Amino acid sequence: MEAAATAETRARRPARSAKPDVAIGSIVARVFNFSSGPAILPEEVLRQAQAELLDWGGRGYSVVESSHRFEPFVALVEEMEVLVRELLAVPSNYQILFMQGGGHQQFAMVPLNLLRARTQADYVVGGHWSNRAAQEASRFCSVRVAADTLKNGATRAPVQSELSLDPQSAYVYYCPNETIHGIEYDYVPATGDVPLVADASSQFLSRTIDVSRFGIVFACAQKNFGPSGLTVAVIRDDLIGHCSPRWPSMLDYKSYSETRSLYNTPATFAVYIAHRVLRWLKDQGGVPAIETRNIEKATLVYDAIDRSDGFYVNRVARAQRSRMNVPFSLRDDRLTAPFLAEAEQGGLAQLKGHRTVGGVRASMYNAMPVEGARRLAAFMQEFQRRHG
Amino acid sequence: MEAAATAETRARRPARSAKPDVAIGSIVARVFNFSSGPAILPEEVLRQAQAELLDWGGRGYSVVESSHRFEPFVALVEEMEVLVRELLAVPSNYQILFMQGGGHQQFAMVPLNLLRARTQADYVVGGHWSNRAAQEASRFCSVRVAADTLKNGATRAPVQSELSLDPQSAYVYYCPNETIHGIEYDYVPATGDVPLVADASSQFLSRTIDVSRFGIVFACAQKNFGPSGLTVAVIRDDLIGHCSPRWPSMLDYKSYSETRSLYNTPATFAVYIAHRVLRWLKDQGGVPAIETRNIEKATLVYDAIDRSDGFYVNRVARAQRSRMNVPFSLRDDRLTAPFLAEAEQGGLAQLKGHRTVGGVRASMYNAMPVEGARRLAAFMQEFQRRHG
Repeated sequence: MEAAATAETRARRPARSAKPDVAIGSIVARVFNFSSGPAILPEEVLRQAQAELLDWGGRGYSVVESSHRFEPFVALVEEMEVLVRELLAVPSNYQILFMQGGGHQQFAMVPLNLLRARTQADYVVGGHWSNRAAQEASRFCSVRVAADTLKNGATRAPVQSELSLDPQSAYVYYCPNETIHGIEYDYVPATGDVPLVADASSQFLSRTIDVSRFGIVFACAQKNFGPSGLTVAVIRDDLIGHCSPRWPSMLDYKSYSETRSLYNTPATFAVYIAHRVLRWLKDQGGVPAIETRNIEKATLVYDAIDRSDGFYVNRVARAQRSRMNVPFSLRDDRLTAPFLAEAEQGGLAQLKGHRTVGGVRASMYNAMPVEGARRLAAFMQEFQRRHG
Repeated sequence: MEAAATAETRARRPARSAKPDVAIGSIVARVFNFSSGPAILPEEVLRQAQAELLDWGGRGYSVVESSHRFEPFVALVEEMEVLVRELLAVPSNYQILFMQGGGHQQFAMVPLNLLRARTQADYVVGGHWSNRAAQEASRFCSVRVAADTLKNGATRAPVQSELSLDPQSAYVYYCPNETIHGIEYDYVPATGDVPLVADASSQFLSRTIDVSRFGIVFACAQKNFGPSGLTVAVIRDDLIGHCSPRWPSMLDYKSYSETRSLYNTPATFAVYIAHRVLRWLKDQGGVPAIETRNIEKATLVYDAIDRSDGFYVNRVARAQRSRMNVPFSLRDDRLTAPFLAEAEQGGLAQLKGHRTVGGVRASMYNAMPVEGARRLAAFMQEFQRRHG
């Protein structure tokens, strides 16, 4: 279809507007954006989207003005599936589904689809997001808290030996990277024959994983692979098809499985950008290459904390420090506001900690260049010199 | 917050990339896009979005890279609410909520929130979409079909006197503009004390309505006011708060009412564009002015059909011809493919009829300029001259 709109056919079209976009040619000073999500996107992806925002593939209209059933758009969704499969080495007995609704919709979809005849599920509570998921699940089943490190301040994840798992549970649920507290599990829970479900929203595609260890891995796009409005779920085949028809069809994984993720109109801009981000990720060398870079970025910032003689404080157990989200406080909390203001002025944006914990949080998802982490570390040292 | 990023502070920021966007300055030949949705958007809105796609309000990052809890983004959602209230003269006892999930999610939310202690609802089936809504509702309650003109080929909407309404029903549901068949009700059903629910997806903001006649008016954005990924519901206060906690929290209107539509992360690009479209609509003179234009556009195309001596055929009852969606067939169906191909080449895009009915469909939502309808009518006449 791309070929249909050649320069020749386009020339014959009556141009509705032919004035050059003068405002666009100007110089853009991009800052380093440490938002926890919706988060930084690869600059080259945004530039390409900008270039074709009014004219998608020479068609004379925007991708967001296209039917989601138009073949070139359908092809894009199909390629996304192929790219995720390739990037994470997803086994053939897993499906890759795209949906709306973010993590919150999955918090409900997981029990509605996985409970089957069972009435209880195990939740490993390692922070805010696994706890929210457990709360939502309690609407539909008996929630067994297999472990809870949130109640003690969320400075570490539960370890395997602490997990109280019941083989009668329909599934075991956890959140491998707790975005708010900056805790990342350094192991995948062993759950025997009970399917393991991971809310990998802030971890997805940032590191290699062994998909075969999981029943479901889901993630919203707005951390590591796109704008908000899109959620991906990688699901083992046999876990699809068990949602009772007394639940809404939108919450049945089968609705998406049967329609190749086009059950209804998706958020097309999010899909389109995510497709480009997945391609970009492949061009970067895939997940192993991006993982190396993510380790480098995290090391730069944690080193700045560890070498600060307590000027900066991160309370998370070392082995479980998140690569994606580095929360820290300043020993003297009165310096937090000046730190954030000066960082912002220095081109280091959205570093404010989550409203529930305060302080500073540097989220460094896939699209954050190493240079961003380097500048943040340098700024931290320089700020400490002036205020320490 | 806008003021914080002055030219001066920006100049101090370390520019990550300073090369001009050479590819963008080129001439874009925009076509007239008759897609039924996701559909045409105002060109000026897209141009503004393009100009600031990498640098939202001088902040050095994109609006899609911003937290949805960032004050300037929250302000934008709040202004959307004000704009919808103003544009539709929404009474003060109605709330305006923004959600994800499109019409399909509303198909479930309406019964889950409105059934309350009742067990049945009345559905007026005038076409494909009201029928889909009825199917979904039948998962949750007894669906009474108050009338059905779909089974007879969907060439008109049921009239008031045909409606078999039961005062015991929790609500009456209908779709005032059936997008696929091109049927638009020429009246608002009288339902007594039973709340009336309208799926106004392809009609919202295209004409003035008396909101006080409705319990709920909902619409997905991708027809008349934005990209896909966003849904609006205008709901009478007293209908909020009745969803049982045994249903997912995402499907409870109260979740959105309590959080000013920021229960979880919305599709931020769709929100941002819709905000601009609503402003654009106000600048056009508001709904009455856009309605006049919509009548003019529809008249142009229906006249081309009616003056074609049966070369073009529209089977819908005259009083209920949709202003938004004009479906028609060619007397000689072998000419449909050439018609579509030549139209496309002439800059009239996405005119193919819905896969279930075939033929041609010209959707002319708010953002379609009158010139687009004029060109389509002229092309129809010219095509008929050559092939009639």
